[in-house]
Amino acid sequence: MTDPVPAPAPAPAPAAGLPPVRYELLHVCRQSGARLGRVHTPHGSFDTPAFMPVGTQGTVKGMSPAELKEMDAGIILSNTYHLWQRPGMETIGALGGLHRFMSWDRPILTDSGGFQVFSLSDLRHITEEGVNFRSHIDGTRQTLSPELSMEVQNVLGSDIAMAFDECTPHPADHAYAKRSLERTARWLERCLKAHRRPHDQALFGIVQGGTYADLRIQSVRETLAFDLPGYAIGGLSVGEPAEDMYRMLEAAVPLLPAGKPRYLMGVGTPDYLIEGAVRGIDMFDCVLPTRIGRNGTVLTSQGRVIIRDAKYARDPGPLDPACGCYACRNFSRGYIRHLVKANELLALRLASYHNLWFLLDLMKQVRRAIAEDRLLDFRAEYLERTGYHLRRK
Amino acid sequence: MTDPVPAPAPAPAPAAGLPPVRYELLHVCRQSGARLGRVHTPHGSFDTPAFMPVGTQGTVKGMSPAELKEMDAGIILSNTYHLWQRPGMETIGALGGLHRFMSWDRPILTDSGGFQVFSLSDLRHITEEGVNFRSHIDGTRQTLSPELSMEVQNVLGSDIAMAFDECTPHPADHAYAKRSLERTARWLERCLKAHRRPHDQALFGIVQGGTYADLRIQSVRETLAFDLPGYAIGGLSVGEPAEDMYRMLEAAVPLLPAGKPRYLMGVGTPDYLIEGAVRGIDMFDCVLPTRIGRNGTVLTSQGRVIIRDAKYARDPGPLDPACGCYACRNFSRGYIRHLVKANELLALRLASYHNLWFLLDLMKQVRRAIAEDRLLDFRAEYLERTGYHLRRK
Repeated sequence: MTDPVPAPAPAPAPAAGLPPVRYELLHVCRQSGARLGRVHTPHGSFDTPAFMPVGTQGTVKGMSPAELKEMDAGIILSNTYHLWQRPGMETIGALGGLHRFMSWDRPILTDSGGFQVFSLSDLRHITEEGVNFRSHIDGTRQTLSPELSMEVQNVLGSDIAMAFDECTPHPADHAYAKRSLERTARWLERCLKAHRRPHDQALFGIVQGGTYADLRIQSVRETLAFDLPGYAIGGLSVGEPAEDMYRMLEAAVPLLPAGKPRYLMGVGTPDYLIEGAVRGIDMFDCVLPTRIGRNGTVLTSQGRVIIRDAKYARDPGPLDPACGCYACRNFSRGYIRHLVKANELLALRLASYHNLWFLLDLMKQVRRAIAEDRLLDFRAEYLERTGYHLRRK
Repeated sequence: MTDPVPAPAPAPAPAAGLPPVRYELLHVCRQSGARLGRVHTPHGSFDTPAFMPVGTQGTVKGMSPAELKEMDAGIILSNTYHLWQRPGMETIGALGGLHRFMSWDRPILTDSGGFQVFSLSDLRHITEEGVNFRSHIDGTRQTLSPELSMEVQNVLGSDIAMAFDECTPHPADHAYAKRSLERTARWLERCLKAHRRPHDQALFGIVQGGTYADLRIQSVRETLAFDLPGYAIGGLSVGEPAEDMYRMLEAAVPLLPAGKPRYLMGVGTPDYLIEGAVRGIDMFDCVLPTRIGRNGTVLTSQGRVIIRDAKYARDPGPLDPACGCYACRNFSRGYIRHLVKANELLALRLASYHNLWFLLDLMKQVRRAIAEDRLLDFRAEYLERTGYHLRRK
């Protein structure tokens, strides 16, 4: 037999009586109202507003945990659906839970699997019980429910578990969006009852309501009734115009309690991160940096760069002259373009690494601007220089 | 415009009158006759016997230069044919040569491209002039000659350039093998005449001769006539039985001068590395560690492990309990198996990293055993424990 892999440092138990995840408000930007804060979890604390790299299958694609620490990732997200399908909760449980499984000793947030059973399955059926869908791994029909989502997340042992919700699609008519958010509220109640680790795993509720301000307000009220350690805004950045998203945030966020973190789900373009922070959001996640990185597109201080373009073939400069990441300190655009054209793994690594570094560095700049009461000035200067609000895809 | 990437430290010029690459013999194992040495190049020195990781397209697949240094790679090999085809010598020349292009400031050896035009092209034609072949990139017919190979290698700026030879296929009859080695000798003369950087780039000649001891001896004599800074043994590990390879080494190596490095081309299984060292070889290269790593196979102190096997699904131990690499210090077999099954890039990275670490660490053990005059004991113990000589593919 082999020696066991050493366990990561055990999570410190929260002080008696305290919720497993607590939000500490450090400063409110006098110019924008944005919040500078810190979220404390059983696996340590992270500063907000925070961007969470996405590790869908228990790994942030192409990155090692050591690299995620180099770029100061304070928390990552992993996907309950994918891990439940493969390798399965029994395997991850047998290997000590998700933190030990993937060798990540900082906070982890897991989603509920709801979004994936809607978006990855072409034959899904929603009932009051849950969602019946076809597995993307083996094609079998399965059902995911609030209780099962909580069971899986309890085994994974993430610091923050998300309630099983219906991510209302866009467009949805008012009647559908209302029925949907009300079901999400009933499912939240079932999640809370099924939750077996309330002492060391925080359950966040999710506000839905489509693009209807009255429904967003209704959903906030129904969700707040459960007095949870944190709240998310879901069902945005799903194809609606940017203005609709901002309007929904402006309707919902002011109703959320100041003492709890607020998470805007699935958002990660540079302009959305800044606009979300301006509107009081503390946490974000998105696959964008690794997904576009794998296609050879990088985020820079001068906008997006498609490194595959022939004009970079002999460019001796780094991906981004303003960046201090490992990729920018060591390699030219010409070399990275060659790696992309030659289908070399190092291309994916360097582009993903740079993009994650870029967004995590952007969040540092956002936090600094909040601390210095100048987030609106920062937004104006940043968007003018980069143009990220003009082209989001 | 972008800022230029900082240049790596410039190569120190060799002292006046000295060849660009020099071999320093440190110790001869009293038990085996194996050599402990050090090779000095314009980009620093490396200890021998040495294993050279292969960076075919200007990158050791999946690895960063920082990682190659973590695992103490003293020299890497890169492939002239691939870099000539893509991105082309003009691009690499414009970006400052191969060292700066790939951000590797330690020694580099380039092969001649001869092996690739034979092995990658299904329609190739050998003439006295060179080899006419079809490009694997765009299908065009092209010709590679001794002069062109040297021109490309001169632009790449490797520390060690290899002569353009014919890698005699196996099996080959005596008459063919003799004609082939004689052409290789004529091509070597043309390489030497075409070489434009003899002051800072060493040209190594290649001994051919198939599996015929008399032809190996003839080839050594014809190659030694050029008094080169180093010599390689080619055309082995191409499908012949191990005993034939050992016999050829025993015929050729004792005729090579003690003051020059000897390189056994394309060899990299653990048993071959040890057997080569026992027979007086100083340098080796092979794609094996990264190629099998990408398929989820790892080399361990207990033999090969196919990590995809279901029996490792919940194995909490590291890839190799005797290994101290990053992969073995941080991840379980169960996790890495999951990554392999899920087609995650991190699987390829961890398996390749471990395999390269494993072979570079094996060479450290070999060097230690030579220094302590016990390489034959080491070989017996190692092969008994690992069984690598029983199963090579």
